Amino acid sequence: MTMQAIVDLVAICAKKGIRHAILSPGSRCAPLTLAFARNPEIQTRTISDERSAAFIALGMAQQLKQPVVLVCTSGSAALNYFPAVSEAFFQEIPLLILTADRPPEWIDQWDGQTIHQTKVYGKHVKESFDFPDSFEHQDQLWYAQRIVNEAINLSISGPKGPVHINIPLREPFYPKKGESFSASANLPIIQVREGKRSLDNEDLDDLKSKLNAFKKILIVPGQQNPDPTISEILQKLNKEQQMVVVADTISNHQIPGSVTLHDHWIGNESISKDLVPDLVISFGKSVISKSLKLFLRKNEVEHWHIQAHQGLRDPFQGLTEFLDCDAIFFLKWLSEQGLSSDKAFQEKWLGLEDKVNTSLFNLLDQEDFGEYPAFKKVLDHIPANSQIQVANSMAIRYLNFLGKRPQEIYCNRGTSGIDGSNSTAVGAAWVSDGLVTLITGDLAFFYDRNAFWNNYPSPNLRIILLNNHAGGIFRLIEGPSQQPELEEYFETGQTLDAFYLAKEQGFDYALARDSKELEANLQDFYQESSQPKILEIESESVKNAQILRRIKNRITEELL
Amino acid sequence: MTMQAIVDLVAICAKKGIRHAILSPGSRCAPLTLAFARNPEIQTRTISDERSAAFIALGMAQQLKQPVVLVCTSGSAALNYFPAVSEAFFQEIPLLILTADRPPEWIDQWDGQTIHQTKVYGKHVKESFDFPDSFEHQDQLWYAQRIVNEAINLSISGPKGPVHINIPLREPFYPKKGESFSASANLPIIQVREGKRSLDNEDLDDLKSKLNAFKKILIVPGQQNPDPTISEILQKLNKEQQMVVVADTISNHQIPGSVTLHDHWIGNESISKDLVPDLVISFGKSVISKSLKLFLRKNEVEHWHIQAHQGLRDPFQGLTEFLDCDAIFFLKWLSEQGLSSDKAFQEKWLGLEDKVNTSLFNLLDQEDFGEYPAFKKVLDHIPANSQIQVANSMAIRYLNFLGKRPQEIYCNRGTSGIDGSNSTAVGAAWVSDGLVTLITGDLAFFYDRNAFWNNYPSPNLRIILLNNHAGGIFRLIEGPSQQPELEEYFETGQTLDAFYLAKEQGFDYALARDSKELEANLQDFYQESSQPKILEIESESVKNAQILRRIKNRITEELL
Repeated sequence: MTMQAIVDLVAICAKKGIRHAILSPGSRCAPLTLAFARNPEIQTRTISDERSAAFIALGMAQQLKQPVVLVCTSGSAALNYFPAVSEAFFQEIPLLILTADRPPEWIDQWDGQTIHQTKVYGKHVKESFDFPDSFEHQDQLWYAQRIVNEAINLSISGPKGPVHINIPLREPFYPKKGESFSASANLPIIQVREGKRSLDNEDLDDLKSKLNAFKKILIVPGQQNPDPTISEILQKLNKEQQMVVVADTISNHQIPGSVTLHDHWIGNESISKDLVPDLVISFGKSVISKSLKLFLRKNEVEHWHIQAHQGLRDPFQGLTEFLDCDAIFFLKWLSEQGLSSDKAFQEKWLGLEDKVNTSLFNLLDQEDFGEYPAFKKVLDHIPANSQIQVANSMAIRYLNFLGKRPQEIYCNRGTSGIDGSNSTAVGAAWVSDGLVTLITGDLAFFYDRNAFWNNYPSPNLRIILLNNHAGGIFRLIEGPSQQPELEEYFETGQTLDAFYLAKEQGFDYALARDSKELEANLQDFYQESSQPKILEIESESVKNAQILRRIKNRITEELL
Repeated sequence: MTMQAIVDLVAICAKKGIRHAILSPGSRCAPLTLAFARNPEIQTRTISDERSAAFIALGMAQQLKQPVVLVCTSGSAALNYFPAVSEAFFQEIPLLILTADRPPEWIDQWDGQTIHQTKVYGKHVKESFDFPDSFEHQDQLWYAQRIVNEAINLSISGPKGPVHINIPLREPFYPKKGESFSASANLPIIQVREGKRSLDNEDLDDLKSKLNAFKKILIVPGQQNPDPTISEILQKLNKEQQMVVVADTISNHQIPGSVTLHDHWIGNESISKDLVPDLVISFGKSVISKSLKLFLRKNEVEHWHIQAHQGLRDPFQGLTEFLDCDAIFFLKWLSEQGLSSDKAFQEKWLGLEDKVNTSLFNLLDQEDFGEYPAFKKVLDHIPANSQIQVANSMAIRYLNFLGKRPQEIYCNRGTSGIDGSNSTAVGAAWVSDGLVTLITGDLAFFYDRNAFWNNYPSPNLRIILLNNHAGGIFRLIEGPSQQPELEEYFETGQTLDAFYLAKEQGFDYALARDSKELEANLQDFYQESSQPKILEIESESVKNAQILRRIKNRITEELL
């Protein structure tokens, strides 16, 4: 009867539109493995390292905007999922996590691969369900089927996110040879129709009267997926109502007229003192720029945040309005109020954007070889109509320093961990038609090298590896760079390059140690290939730090 | 003031005898990193992949029998520790886990590297403490110092295990240049003196009267560290009182006269039917042999378990006495009661042991090349006075099939995961004077390849890699081997060998594809080296399955 419940679980997944499952090998999970492998509507792939498996599923779900199923065996397998589960939770990516478990009577009895799996992800899943472990009464099958419906519905509504079902299984795990599976008749399918959230007229009137007092309005979109409708409204607000749109690279809303190079000057009080807004309106998730956050906090700017679900966020320490509605609803309303802001204020912001835009790229072109100028050169070659996956630490910071991008930008900014960026890119590549470029540093790259330990091709994946043989970020931030422990304990020098990894995996590989090699290798980097290509850019951490400081100082001089 | 609390934390660790810390790079944890790096009594090493870092610390603590400190930054870093934390919990290995965190006011505000770290390891740590986040009142410093004392004491008493302190830290993280650290005067040091647990005479009298009824007594030591005193008592019980000692390889009590080859026949009812004991006495943790467990369960054998702490374990489904005392106390008492058991019963068990012992090794010598005979040949070459670290899945099973070993045996049987065995061996090697041989399969090996991604030498490490390019165990167990999904979804074929990994790391490397190559490569395998050595034994999964079945059938034929 348990096998029937599992077959039904998979059938419900298929009927509710799930098309991909990432399985990791194990015996306890065999009923799940077999039921997924035998369902023709769901494509399954097997990944041995569960940490990587979960980030791969995350990369797929990030692109599909639909839950991807994860299946693992009992024990520490489930724990290896946790870094990606947490990232999915904070990045609001739907995952359906199915962990096989021993039945409750065998927990804590020294049986193999047995831990405490119930609710093991704590607050990092939207919900954690305990699948029934027996089906003596028919209501238990209904319960199981209802759990699966609810889990999938939860994963895709409200804020999307990971949902966990822990599934206790008793032997036998395997059907008899040749035994076929068929789902129960009349499986209950419960659709969720997510409501649109708007504000009533009374609230809007109140907000309107407040808005009249603000003439210097900043709009800050946090991390989100591309959305042409929102981009269009932002352009209107920017152009017709003189609101300043300050957009990090992960906002995917770097519209024409937006400010994207603020990180170059906003931390400098002499430059930014006349640029304090009287209201900031935000939506989406996190912003990258720490300087922007500090600027808004320090100047005690009033903040309105739009978010159609609970969870109070006050990242600028000035929140006064929590607008519990869809961003699109409020922004559209805002754009229709005939408000007009201070044009001179907007021009100041845009003037700085222009100035940095002119000088930055010139400065980079004139610079010595290093990861910052190399990063710029790489960006010049990435096809506009493609996707960039970028690792945390310096990679995402450089990208954010370098202004507007035509590509879609994805980065694991839910937890901002160094883990899992290769796997996320691999998963994204598997379900994307176009090219996927991963830009990463050496620590993130080797940390997650098991991303490539699988038997599935990723011909559309391109990897730019910025290898300075260390966690270069620690030389670039002020505190650790002044400690005698810098190199051993912060930078953590590491000797690997990707040459052998590429050999091992049969990937195309090229190494660039100067501008000429870089330029040459970039020429055919985006030509078709049957395998991923790695372009490794080797640079020196000390020199990279010098370049970054030099450019920062030159820009500051020009702006002052 | 926070910095002072952190310096004091480290000083208390040192004063309480902690000598090793494994640090992972990060900014939030910088105060911890610096305080540990600057304490001359504690040796620090930096490991970038936290999953590996935690298993390395586990391997060290397993050997030292003292807590090893782990330090990581906030966010998913802490989650990457979790597989090893869970293994340490169930294997009862002391770890002091220090996770840097954002202060509470910044949780859930979209700041980078921020998750819900409080009590994140759930039931998989002995305790999880929240370090104070301010020190406005002097009692808060006393509280912090008391927490550190209690955490260390907990980790080493009762059942040993991991203890977590979550440490919220606010900027600045770095001292001024040249600023030196010194611990507070009169730091409180609270020693724990662990009591010995014994039973009172009334209980002992009662047990004695019960014991008189049992003539067929099996003693089953579960996983534990070597202990000559216990081994000696077991020999006495075995020799003078005719008790049958059935000892898995991880029991580290395979005394002369013990039964160690039971896995070859105990699952066969025709052979084992006369060997049912009327009492089994166990102590220590898990046993490997599933057949032994099933045999005891099926025959409803009465079971007494000795364990000096709470947590009822009934792995044979026949528990009647939970002896809440130290094993050594009860075994010593037992050996002094002048009991005598059924000699014929013991002789039957030992007779089978002898028979298998004679035929198994002959059969293996005559076999085709494959991982089972190769395993035997490898064991012949491992120096007696050394340590074997063995991975889960088939490696530990083969080792257990192959009978008595003079070496100390360690295997991560707390959760029996495929993860972390390389790292555990690396950690063990770093704190062991003698040779450490890791025996592993290819899935376990590549899963945890980041074990070697560090800058510290392990010249005493030898690695035997049994590479059948798959999770061969699934072909060897009955269920999956009969499913059409066997190769893709269970075995999960993988193409890697260790050649490039060895190149990359500068390890010595040899490949054996037949008996001659194996024999030749083993000749100098244990000679001194400045680097670890890998001996990769390549075999075919299909052939390995045939050999295992052939030998099993031949032995069964001989015993019937």
